[in-house]
Amino acid sequence: MKKTVLIIGAGGVAQVVAHKCAQNNDVLGALHIASRTKSKCDDIVASVHEKGAMKVEGTFDTHQVDATKSDEVAELIRKTGAEIVINVGTAFVNMHVLDGCLETGAAYIDTAIHEEPDKICETPPWYANYEWKKKDACAEKGVTAILGAGFDPGVVNAFARFAVDEYMDEVKSIDIVDVNAGSHGRYFATNFDPEINFREFTGVVYYWEDGTWKEKQMFETGHEWDLPVVGKQMAYQSGHDEVHSLATNYPQADVRFWMGFGERYITVFTVLKNLGLLSEQPVTLAEGQEVVPLKVVKACLPDPSSLAPDYTGNTCIGDLVKGTKDGEEVEVFVYNVADHKVAYNEVGSQGISYTAGVPPVAAAMLIADGTWDTKDMRNVEELDPKPFFTILDRIGLPTRVSFKDQDKAWNA
Amino acid sequence: MKKTVLIIGAGGVAQVVAHKCAQNNDVLGALHIASRTKSKCDDIVASVHEKGAMKVEGTFDTHQVDATKSDEVAELIRKTGAEIVINVGTAFVNMHVLDGCLETGAAYIDTAIHEEPDKICETPPWYANYEWKKKDACAEKGVTAILGAGFDPGVVNAFARFAVDEYMDEVKSIDIVDVNAGSHGRYFATNFDPEINFREFTGVVYYWEDGTWKEKQMFETGHEWDLPVVGKQMAYQSGHDEVHSLATNYPQADVRFWMGFGERYITVFTVLKNLGLLSEQPVTLAEGQEVVPLKVVKACLPDPSSLAPDYTGNTCIGDLVKGTKDGEEVEVFVYNVADHKVAYNEVGSQGISYTAGVPPVAAAMLIADGTWDTKDMRNVEELDPKPFFTILDRIGLPTRVSFKDQDKAWNA
Repeated sequence: MKKTVLIIGAGGVAQVVAHKCAQNNDVLGALHIASRTKSKCDDIVASVHEKGAMKVEGTFDTHQVDATKSDEVAELIRKTGAEIVINVGTAFVNMHVLDGCLETGAAYIDTAIHEEPDKICETPPWYANYEWKKKDACAEKGVTAILGAGFDPGVVNAFARFAVDEYMDEVKSIDIVDVNAGSHGRYFATNFDPEINFREFTGVVYYWEDGTWKEKQMFETGHEWDLPVVGKQMAYQSGHDEVHSLATNYPQADVRFWMGFGERYITVFTVLKNLGLLSEQPVTLAEGQEVVPLKVVKACLPDPSSLAPDYTGNTCIGDLVKGTKDGEEVEVFVYNVADHKVAYNEVGSQGISYTAGVPPVAAAMLIADGTWDTKDMRNVEELDPKPFFTILDRIGLPTRVSFKDQDKAWNA
Repeated sequence: MKKTVLIIGAGGVAQVVAHKCAQNNDVLGALHIASRTKSKCDDIVASVHEKGAMKVEGTFDTHQVDATKSDEVAELIRKTGAEIVINVGTAFVNMHVLDGCLETGAAYIDTAIHEEPDKICETPPWYANYEWKKKDACAEKGVTAILGAGFDPGVVNAFARFAVDEYMDEVKSIDIVDVNAGSHGRYFATNFDPEINFREFTGVVYYWEDGTWKEKQMFETGHEWDLPVVGKQMAYQSGHDEVHSLATNYPQADVRFWMGFGERYITVFTVLKNLGLLSEQPVTLAEGQEVVPLKVVKACLPDPSSLAPDYTGNTCIGDLVKGTKDGEEVEVFVYNVADHKVAYNEVGSQGISYTAGVPPVAAAMLIADGTWDTKDMRNVEELDPKPFFTILDRIGLPTRVSFKDQDKAWNA
């Protein structure tokens, strides 16, 4: 049994992780949260206590850490005695936090792929550029590291594994569809860190088809999907983390990712990108100051966590998986629908943060009870999805399946 | 006879001013140009010599100056012996350059209203906030100061004066229409300094109707104009310098300004404005750096002078003036059409810089020969327009008149 959890990060997703850890502290033990700005951690823990979220009596301590320094992370792990680290800081710190875990033996969980600030969209498969280089080190030291255990990547990887295992002999394609049909009432806002959000879409769209990597431009290919609860929605083929591990684990399948965008998002994105305002490379102002335009855009946009109180509507994220079973063509849609307002009422965050923040806590609980404590590095599709779904059902993100005109719970 | 000209500024308009001064150095004498960055002045003078633009043998010297310091400006005026200063630097330096002229007795010409960097769209009439406070000082010291002697403001003020003087007993309305039907082939660019360009449209739209100041929002009121050469074009009621002096000099007339905008401009402007990226107030980045968003947008956009080589098409700028003559309703459209390509071939600049840069040189020539050397402060409508048109006809911006189905030269 591993216990004592250290959360790294203090944004909208960290808020959800903190609340969910508190609600399950009978399994997870003592809780800690650390960020560059300790006061943000204090605010989060205060909101946990306001909601009376701690299931059993226990501690929830806050710390300051510079997570770009693996030494500082290791020192904090030792100081807190953390056995599980849930990293929901910016994607720029992943490898440093993982190194801290390797140094101390603590289990590692993250929800997005590592990024270097000055590089956008590296060569596929993305995980091979950073994370997978530490596979051997994890195995040698017996360190459990679960990569991309948010919703997408994360739960959608488990959806794919489940669909393939349960519904087919052979998989032919995996299409992941992420639609947010909610409304925040602002002119424009991103649902998570604008810097990371925009970086997802400024690069090449990589996807896996016919056993090879192919490339598109963003917004080159759109498709209207007809989805449960949220109905007909346009989604566009985009680059995304999980394509890079699923293509490696299911090389026989085409793997694509589709993100829903409203017209407003596309207009704003197109203007900002064409003007060079989404660039991660510094420009020099007339007055001589060096500035990264994307960071200025981020500073001007609403803080994603500020959207929560007014957010209404639902998200629908799922996998359309096609293959053959007993020689016949089959297809199944495995999905979750989340409600922004319900998320806010429960943990004070909007649905996007909720869907990203709940799954890594489920993963932590599975490490804590040993089920997923593999002592090596895994992507989520390399783990048994059923115990994951069982916990997710219970803690707020139920998995459903559409198959042959039937819509039902995954285990019905 | 005043001679020896000092040009302040080294942007696209200064380039035109320099070429036109050189082409008329028999009237204007020795030439000087100064800017914060001397190398930009060197480039401009080099282009003057490349084109063989100097009409008669003479000097064209370059200097470094910080035009936000009136002492430095005064010292440079003394050093060069300049008797006429053409200020085409940023609108932020106007009052400092004017002070330098007041200190030394040199005549002053500018092409846009003074602006303070941290203030947008002050109370009308705008000239009363800065320039007109120096009216008495100019008169006492016998300093000639011609305000807003570009195209708009400038030539359009003369168009209004001419229409009223020649075509009516009583003026009822003056509508200034500025349409650029040219194409630069870029996704988006402003035709002059983006910072000044956007500042024009982020504030309240002030206009004068029924003897009082009224207010609108930008893009609130659009109208399709059918104009000579450029044809049908949408223009939107906007704030503009000349409305503020014309309303003071013709309080009995409604005075409005209309600027042509394409859909792309409106989309980009709307996105940037709504996101807060046109703000002149600093924001604090996550990393702590303080940055003015508008200055970052400026740094990302194409340098307006870089548009010139590929620019094609025409501008049409004119005044629709309505009134009564001998008891009957009359209306007249006084206008100029300029061709981007012709401007580039002559002076290496696009048409917008050309229309802004030629008129102050005509004004300088009228000061040089005494015609406009009034030894006090004037807006252009307070000066005889005919000698101005005569020079403009000759140096590249002919004035035409549409009246009762006739289209003709102003003096035909």
